[in-house]
Amino acid sequence: MNDNTGDRIMNRGFEAVDLSSEDLIALAAQRKAAAADILRLTWLAGCGHPGGSLSTLDALLLLYRFGKLSPDKAQAPDRDRVIISHGHISPGVYATLAQHGYFAIEEAYRGFRRAGSVFGGHVENCVPGVEWNTGNLGQGLSAGCAMAFASGVHQRPYHVFVGMGDGEQQKGQVSEARRFAAHFRLSNLIAFIDVNGLQIGGDTQRIMAQRLQEEWEAAGWNVLSLDGHDHHALYTAFRCATRRETPNPDAPTVLLLRTVMGKGVSFIENDAKYHGQSLTSEQVRRAFAELGVEDDLDALLALRAAGSDTRAHHVPVDRDVQIACGTPRTYDVATKTDCRSAYGDALLDLAQHNKDNPDAWPIIGISCDLEGSVKMNAFHKLTPARFVEAGIQEHHSAVFAGALSKERCVPFFSTFGMFGIVEVYNQQRLNDQNSAAPRVVVTHCGLDVGEDGPTHQCIDYIPLAHNLFGAELYAPADPNETDRIIRYVASRHVPAFVTMGRSKLPTLATPEGQPALAGDFQGGRWITLREGNDAVVFAFGAMVWRAVAASDRLAAEGIQLRVVNASSLKPIDKDCILKAAKEVGRLLTYEDHNVHTGLGALVASTLGDAGIAARLRRLGVQRYGTSGPPDDLFAEQGLATEDLMAAARELARADA
Amino acid sequence: MNDNTGDRIMNRGFEAVDLSSEDLIALAAQRKAAAADILRLTWLAGCGHPGGSLSTLDALLLLYRFGKLSPDKAQAPDRDRVIISHGHISPGVYATLAQHGYFAIEEAYRGFRRAGSVFGGHVENCVPGVEWNTGNLGQGLSAGCAMAFASGVHQRPYHVFVGMGDGEQQKGQVSEARRFAAHFRLSNLIAFIDVNGLQIGGDTQRIMAQRLQEEWEAAGWNVLSLDGHDHHALYTAFRCATRRETPNPDAPTVLLLRTVMGKGVSFIENDAKYHGQSLTSEQVRRAFAELGVEDDLDALLALRAAGSDTRAHHVPVDRDVQIACGTPRTYDVATKTDCRSAYGDALLDLAQHNKDNPDAWPIIGISCDLEGSVKMNAFHKLTPARFVEAGIQEHHSAVFAGALSKERCVPFFSTFGMFGIVEVYNQQRLNDQNSAAPRVVVTHCGLDVGEDGPTHQCIDYIPLAHNLFGAELYAPADPNETDRIIRYVASRHVPAFVTMGRSKLPTLATPEGQPALAGDFQGGRWITLREGNDAVVFAFGAMVWRAVAASDRLAAEGIQLRVVNASSLKPIDKDCILKAAKEVGRLLTYEDHNVHTGLGALVASTLGDAGIAARLRRLGVQRYGTSGPPDDLFAEQGLATEDLMAAARELARADA
Repeated sequence: MNDNTGDRIMNRGFEAVDLSSEDLIALAAQRKAAAADILRLTWLAGCGHPGGSLSTLDALLLLYRFGKLSPDKAQAPDRDRVIISHGHISPGVYATLAQHGYFAIEEAYRGFRRAGSVFGGHVENCVPGVEWNTGNLGQGLSAGCAMAFASGVHQRPYHVFVGMGDGEQQKGQVSEARRFAAHFRLSNLIAFIDVNGLQIGGDTQRIMAQRLQEEWEAAGWNVLSLDGHDHHALYTAFRCATRRETPNPDAPTVLLLRTVMGKGVSFIENDAKYHGQSLTSEQVRRAFAELGVEDDLDALLALRAAGSDTRAHHVPVDRDVQIACGTPRTYDVATKTDCRSAYGDALLDLAQHNKDNPDAWPIIGISCDLEGSVKMNAFHKLTPARFVEAGIQEHHSAVFAGALSKERCVPFFSTFGMFGIVEVYNQQRLNDQNSAAPRVVVTHCGLDVGEDGPTHQCIDYIPLAHNLFGAELYAPADPNETDRIIRYVASRHVPAFVTMGRSKLPTLATPEGQPALAGDFQGGRWITLREGNDAVVFAFGAMVWRAVAASDRLAAEGIQLRVVNASSLKPIDKDCILKAAKEVGRLLTYEDHNVHTGLGALVASTLGDAGIAARLRRLGVQRYGTSGPPDDLFAEQGLATEDLMAAARELARADA
Repeated sequence: MNDNTGDRIMNRGFEAVDLSSEDLIALAAQRKAAAADILRLTWLAGCGHPGGSLSTLDALLLLYRFGKLSPDKAQAPDRDRVIISHGHISPGVYATLAQHGYFAIEEAYRGFRRAGSVFGGHVENCVPGVEWNTGNLGQGLSAGCAMAFASGVHQRPYHVFVGMGDGEQQKGQVSEARRFAAHFRLSNLIAFIDVNGLQIGGDTQRIMAQRLQEEWEAAGWNVLSLDGHDHHALYTAFRCATRRETPNPDAPTVLLLRTVMGKGVSFIENDAKYHGQSLTSEQVRRAFAELGVEDDLDALLALRAAGSDTRAHHVPVDRDVQIACGTPRTYDVATKTDCRSAYGDALLDLAQHNKDNPDAWPIIGISCDLEGSVKMNAFHKLTPARFVEAGIQEHHSAVFAGALSKERCVPFFSTFGMFGIVEVYNQQRLNDQNSAAPRVVVTHCGLDVGEDGPTHQCIDYIPLAHNLFGAELYAPADPNETDRIIRYVASRHVPAFVTMGRSKLPTLATPEGQPALAGDFQGGRWITLREGNDAVVFAFGAMVWRAVAASDRLAAEGIQLRVVNASSLKPIDKDCILKAAKEVGRLLTYEDHNVHTGLGALVASTLGDAGIAARLRRLGVQRYGTSGPPDDLFAEQGLATEDLMAAARELARADA
């Protein structure tokens, strides 16, 4: 049904001065075939987005014909990268990729928008040739920035092409990414926008007027405006952009493609309805007649009826992180410091160990105007080219960090917890769906944020991490544990959140006075810091030393309070909870997190799932905090050491 | 220590042609006094943001001197609104408000950045004169848009002034809000930006270069650039903007204020360190000498030592929603429709009942390019002036909806669940902190999104709602329940999330064949749809009719499966869970939500908290879904009706 006319060696880029007549003929044929495939795919599924697929199609065909791409080299380090940010034009992408030999189009016919298939409604990187999952609009350009930046880090010259819709330009994150790209002079980044003038609701200017030319110029980009269906014009524009034959060769370039939604099928052209609606059989046949394509709908139905392959990741993720983790640093028990500083020291040590090893994956530090607060200064000074100050642009930065992890880099993204997890939760979610692995080390978590008040108190991150199937979450209790957790997450391709407060903490000691958390760190394993069988308290982060102090003071009263450091908040240590429930049966949770959604909920639901009856009392944050020093805020929410002691006393004296 | 020189009648606006010499003298005196207060406040707290407070101060003083504002009329409907989006300049705001009689500055001396006080590190609307809590940058302009829009809705002419920082301009949401404001011709909206050229990390252009003039012009605003410390220039600019003596009188206006961080204290001017650092005692004394202010630090310490008032909302929230809820519509049991349509019908009915009643709070519908999908078309047609198409700008729209609820409006914000909850979780969080009450009715929740794939599957909203202390969450199971829930949330000033899928559902019937959910709806109360004592299943939304079908089919096998409709997901019905645990002891949860964080976790943790041992089996979403029809996706995740039946059989046969 379809000729795979693409050759299978790497294309040479936009080298020729212009298209040859052979190119023009081949492109015309491909356009016709791909347009028909777009109609077939959406007709077979009974849904999907033909309109934008047809309007972006010519740019896609040009790109895959000439860009340094090859289906046999879909993971080649020097390949160009293509990101389609308006992921709903998946039929156009699949049709184009099939034209260039990435897979047989029949696979897509069978699987498009079908449960279990890789050929999803929005593009996903389990399809060969797709670099980055999209679907939530406005995020693709940020991923493109990461790939363009990685070209410089690895000193491998390639281009990154990012396709976007015109409605999508309304998303705020686009303005962050384009500012970033201009600031970092990512001249190897080329965006192209399908300006078909229509979004779901109709005319883009009527829905929400925007001045694309002026906006992109204000952001410092080269702006080329052209007919997005003119193959000559497209070739020339891509050639100029890739050769930096632009007004500002140091700036990235955007192509504003004047296009027609539904282009090539006369009776759907410029009709917003076909943004997201497939054609009827009769309409498809009429369109085929216009295109001069044979009617094969019955054969297609038979093919579709045969079922589709189940989903599998065709393109493996490289999880074999190349990095030397060095020797953990042990802080003695007299040390009192903040986990932030221990993080900064560990990051510096990791960078020192790896920076001169050409095989090591580069560590990239990313901050959003909080370099000092998150203690990245020393890292910045050591490897300035690997430190990225991204401005107050957290949405962009979260995606940037995620996409970097797919480019043989080890990204550490650090800001306050509110801005690195809560504010950008959706970006972290798409990172997770991409099998990306940003290491998100965030400070100022819990009530321990200084006196900044409720907007800055990140007391709601635990369920966010639990919502992300692939993510892990660690909250170190002291500098020793911080050091070990940072090395642990650095070495593993896993989206990891590491949360810590702002204040200085004592280094935790065993009852014998030795550093308590200087052994190996292992996710999913909780460590008992004080033994006891009258009650058990589970705590993490800034509450742990308080729990230890409570236990030591209660011991003088004859109450033995077991203290468990629940630093591994995802995965949790269910065995440890159940053991405590069975052995002691009197449990406390103690956290500066929303009491309804934090560690207490995890412990309670572990008991409920196991069908084990125990007494459980949760201490946690009951309402939004006020502005004040952490000790005062803890007291305000019933979280002072004395509050824990009182709760433990009451529980220990209760009947079992 | 301070003269309250502001008079207590409503100012008359910027009517006079220019400042009088009396004005100039008074302003100079106020500037000196307020600058000293900024230094006092931050010195007393040992933290805070003097730099930006001093650079924004002149604009604030002008605004509160001439804007239509009065401390005695802080809730007057015709007052001008002032929003300070860069909420960290709270010392400057408090100093200004005290100068104009909103409270005695001594209150702020005693309470600033102290646990329990209203005088937080970032401004909060429990302080008289503060309209909107800020602190997470980039959101204030969206709130300002809502207040400016409400002026038109209520036909009350006033102005809305929004102050912002220059670093803040990097936030993507600013670009959404300014596009929206221009599109809706909010000419009564006046933004002013403190362009002091510094952010925490240093020079704004070095951190992340931006071209403010070009960006705001590209967005279609009038842009006035002026010396932000020149009282004449400030007055003239505010006068021109409020009188619409601008190049485009239909457009909003922004003032770019060229300022000096730390202005007025020579040795901290232009030093980024003082963005967020207080002065030492010696420095304050030196500054006082420069300003010609008496050294009163010892007296201040004594005042501070006396303690501060505890927090209370000085400005009450109007929770008495004026709206007629009409008569619920009852769908008969033969009806099969989607909850979206029942929502659209209920919204239309509410609008019809209230639109001609001048005392009723206007219902405002807000959509983000998904009007048809969320079934707002009929509402739009009925009251076009009260329908807001906000473009693909969800971050902006969420704040816009929240702020409208504080302006005697009933905002219904509708889009897909992914975009109205997940993507804008942080915006909904700040809405909650503002005691705002957007009614967020979102469709395409769970796996039931059509064939759009994992980026569109909102399977993670339950814990997000539970993270927000004030929020409620309802997931109707059929059109009758949808209708009642919509009327219920319309009438209450509570941030409410209502979630529903895309597909048509049967209208639920009692065993006797009557509509099962046509009674009153009450938050926190779960309704039993089928009785049974072999096992109990808790379900919500699209899973309920499947659970009922399973129960009816199992009855033929002699297994009595109790079916509970857990539509009130926050608050939950704990009594119902505990009753089932005690009576039956064999529980199932059945949900198209992340199995780790949804209803199953709520039931499990309720059991764990109560110390009740029961058998519990959770059925839910185990991993990100693929693209396909909902039935196929349910089957893929073990959520078919047959899967529930198998689980119920197994549980019913297990030993108790």
